[in-house]
Amino acid sequence: MISQETIVALASPSGAGAIAVIRLSGKDALTIAEQVFQSVSGKSISKQKTHTIHLGHIVDNGKIYDQVLVSIFKNPNSYTGEDVVEISCHGSTYIQQQIIQLLLRKGCRMAQAGEFTLRAFLNGKLDLSQAEAVADLISSDNEASHQIAMQQMRGGFSNEIAKLREELLNFASLIELELDFAEEDVEFADRTQFSDLLNRIEFVLKRLIDSFAVGNVIKNGIPVAIVGEPNVGKSTLLNALLNEERAIVSDIAGTTRDTIEDELVIEGIGFRFIDTAGIRETKDVVESIGIKKTFEKIEQAQVIVYLLDSLEYQVSSSKFQVELEKIKNQFPLKPLIIIGNKVDRLSAEEVSNLKSQIENILLLSAKEKQGIENLKAQLLSFVNTGALRNNETIVTNTRHYDSLLKALEEIQKVKFGMQSNLSSDLMAIDIKQALYYFGEITGEVTNDELLGNIFANFCIGK
Amino acid sequence: MISQETIVALASPSGAGAIAVIRLSGKDALTIAEQVFQSVSGKSISKQKTHTIHLGHIVDNGKIYDQVLVSIFKNPNSYTGEDVVEISCHGSTYIQQQIIQLLLRKGCRMAQAGEFTLRAFLNGKLDLSQAEAVADLISSDNEASHQIAMQQMRGGFSNEIAKLREELLNFASLIELELDFAEEDVEFADRTQFSDLLNRIEFVLKRLIDSFAVGNVIKNGIPVAIVGEPNVGKSTLLNALLNEERAIVSDIAGTTRDTIEDELVIEGIGFRFIDTAGIRETKDVVESIGIKKTFEKIEQAQVIVYLLDSLEYQVSSSKFQVELEKIKNQFPLKPLIIIGNKVDRLSAEEVSNLKSQIENILLLSAKEKQGIENLKAQLLSFVNTGALRNNETIVTNTRHYDSLLKALEEIQKVKFGMQSNLSSDLMAIDIKQALYYFGEITGEVTNDELLGNIFANFCIGK
Repeated sequence: MISQETIVALASPSGAGAIAVIRLSGKDALTIAEQVFQSVSGKSISKQKTHTIHLGHIVDNGKIYDQVLVSIFKNPNSYTGEDVVEISCHGSTYIQQQIIQLLLRKGCRMAQAGEFTLRAFLNGKLDLSQAEAVADLISSDNEASHQIAMQQMRGGFSNEIAKLREELLNFASLIELELDFAEEDVEFADRTQFSDLLNRIEFVLKRLIDSFAVGNVIKNGIPVAIVGEPNVGKSTLLNALLNEERAIVSDIAGTTRDTIEDELVIEGIGFRFIDTAGIRETKDVVESIGIKKTFEKIEQAQVIVYLLDSLEYQVSSSKFQVELEKIKNQFPLKPLIIIGNKVDRLSAEEVSNLKSQIENILLLSAKEKQGIENLKAQLLSFVNTGALRNNETIVTNTRHYDSLLKALEEIQKVKFGMQSNLSSDLMAIDIKQALYYFGEITGEVTNDELLGNIFANFCIGK
Repeated sequence: MISQETIVALASPSGAGAIAVIRLSGKDALTIAEQVFQSVSGKSISKQKTHTIHLGHIVDNGKIYDQVLVSIFKNPNSYTGEDVVEISCHGSTYIQQQIIQLLLRKGCRMAQAGEFTLRAFLNGKLDLSQAEAVADLISSDNEASHQIAMQQMRGGFSNEIAKLREELLNFASLIELELDFAEEDVEFADRTQFSDLLNRIEFVLKRLIDSFAVGNVIKNGIPVAIVGEPNVGKSTLLNALLNEERAIVSDIAGTTRDTIEDELVIEGIGFRFIDTAGIRETKDVVESIGIKKTFEKIEQAQVIVYLLDSLEYQVSSSKFQVELEKIKNQFPLKPLIIIGNKVDRLSAEEVSNLKSQIENILLLSAKEKQGIENLKAQLLSFVNTGALRNNETIVTNTRHYDSLLKALEEIQKVKFGMQSNLSSDLMAIDIKQALYYFGEITGEVTNDELLGNIFANFCIGK
């Protein structure tokens, strides 16, 4: 499966910068680099030690392409486990292209997306879940997703799975052995110990499966819908949360016709705020389309923030109550935060009245940025970040989640087989299947299609 | 002038990629890096050899930021001449920012635009014109501009200037010496040799000054205006030249209201094509604004391409002749290429008629892509690429051009002074002034404002 070709790609982000890094990997990486690199010292790079850097020029046919630094990594001490050469050139896109084209002419092939990491996996430098963590790490954009990817890349997740898999494999071979001696009716595998192991595996699998809910939230952010009557200050609240003027704020009711999404990171957790057009009764066609959209958006959100104008509520409370009822009826299970905005303009008596009329109302002033911190804290309370704080393994990858679910199903079949005295040969089939799903996660069990799917999501150059 | 602070910046292009490179330079670069880097080998990086690479983690306060490779360059063997550390991290913008912020907390300062190269200049690793070539190299986007920048960075230009400056300096000191012995009326400086030198300097300066016209063209491309009656196929021609559908092509006369610029590189020379709205007589206000714009654009162009519809010319040739006359009268000195388009639909007889009626007409079919190569060749003939091909020094920098012009003026003053037997003390003033302008180019003479202007045009991280 490992291609013998030497691959090349731009490893640094595309575009112009001070420097750019071009990476070669494969058995001819050093000899190809040598053909185009003239070191200032005059020494041949293939004779240099691994992990050393050399100043010189990329030259071909008498033409000087650039002054560069060349870094050498000799197999197996490289990212891919093969010979690797990294060329740091000046960061003009023209120079980047010229050097890559030159290397292609000299016998390199353009690397496919993720091919460097694929080779690292195939050469045993990383397991599959670690390789996947590399892509997560590169796309991580907040504290929590970064920490989880780091943990996974360092093997936190794989180690746990690999350990359980090994123990299960042990029992599997004992049970296989029993099959060979089927006539004699012996039990090599201690059934009590095996039952203990199955319980432990079940416990770990359930914990990992449960962690996916948190993991998913951390990876993708929590969608929060901000809902309320036009002109109650939704956009202002959004701006106060985002601390900048991203949404269009105006005094004309119904300004926010399009839903605007924006992301805010609170203590490392991403929240995606969905500003909606409100849900008041209207005869305006454009408005009523907006209201339909609001309901659709609430459907997608995990948390609803309902905003009311505290001043207006003093005058006519009924319409707010109607709306609140409507939301509660439509989405009985979604967490709902009720906010009374413009609290800065209420008297102490009005504040206490409002609090007694609406349970758990959060009073704030979006304009004056009062009470915003309370809202942030309440939003954060919806996320079970305990696992994250305790540095527990969290599953964020849908592929892993699927394999874990399937493994759990098989383990539960084995448990049931134990309880119902299923014959060893039938039980062995379920155990094998469970082992298969464990292996899928770390890559002991794999196939070209699976690898193709995983690495296609990588960027080229990684 | 050299700041003692250790500076940090992202050296690779901004954005996400497989890897990113963060660069530190300054006397504390190694000790600051050491505070946040834990090498896998456990060895301290400041004890490692220069030009070596080390695998490890960026860690602070127990938090792992990333797995990275750290490259070490010890002074004076680095780009800046100071201790330099380059951290290759995973290319997520989040990780890039986190690591840079960590390094800022540990005592680095954010580098200003071009500050690494400024330090290289101040530490004598590059002269000023070489430093400027670094920025040109990064922004080079074609063969010719790249080659010129490479040549300049390798000192081609500075060497020539520095050598002349040294010879002139020699004479200057002899003439200064004469001033000390003014009473005795001696001549230490051989006037014949001096006159020879001045002639040589004048010759070189003139050649360099002349090369600026080519250099400027190479750096910025040659502006070519494509002019002609609406619907004769200007946009189609532009597309045929650019070999892609960038301009909006339509059959409605007068479609191209806005001038569209696009660049084509022919044999390493950039041409900027300016598509114009034509110059027919019209009563349409929008159209007539377009025609005014056409004349303005022709004014800016160095070459005019006039396009006529060969088929239509068979029917009514007079309006084309009127237009051509108008252009020739308005711009008598600009090179003009007259093109007969749609030649694929002419008979042999019509072709020969057209050729006899309009001298040097270039017949082609933009739609069928016939004759496009001839047009490219003719465009190329306007560029004197002789100097480029002969690997002569070409001046592309306006600052250098200005200094060269001023130096030439002073040299001519000195020459005139020699001829008119000017006293040594007055001549010495002009020589000093010439030396000053020479020094400005290479940076022997400099000031903060000049350096500020030059390096402000660099990207941060270089």
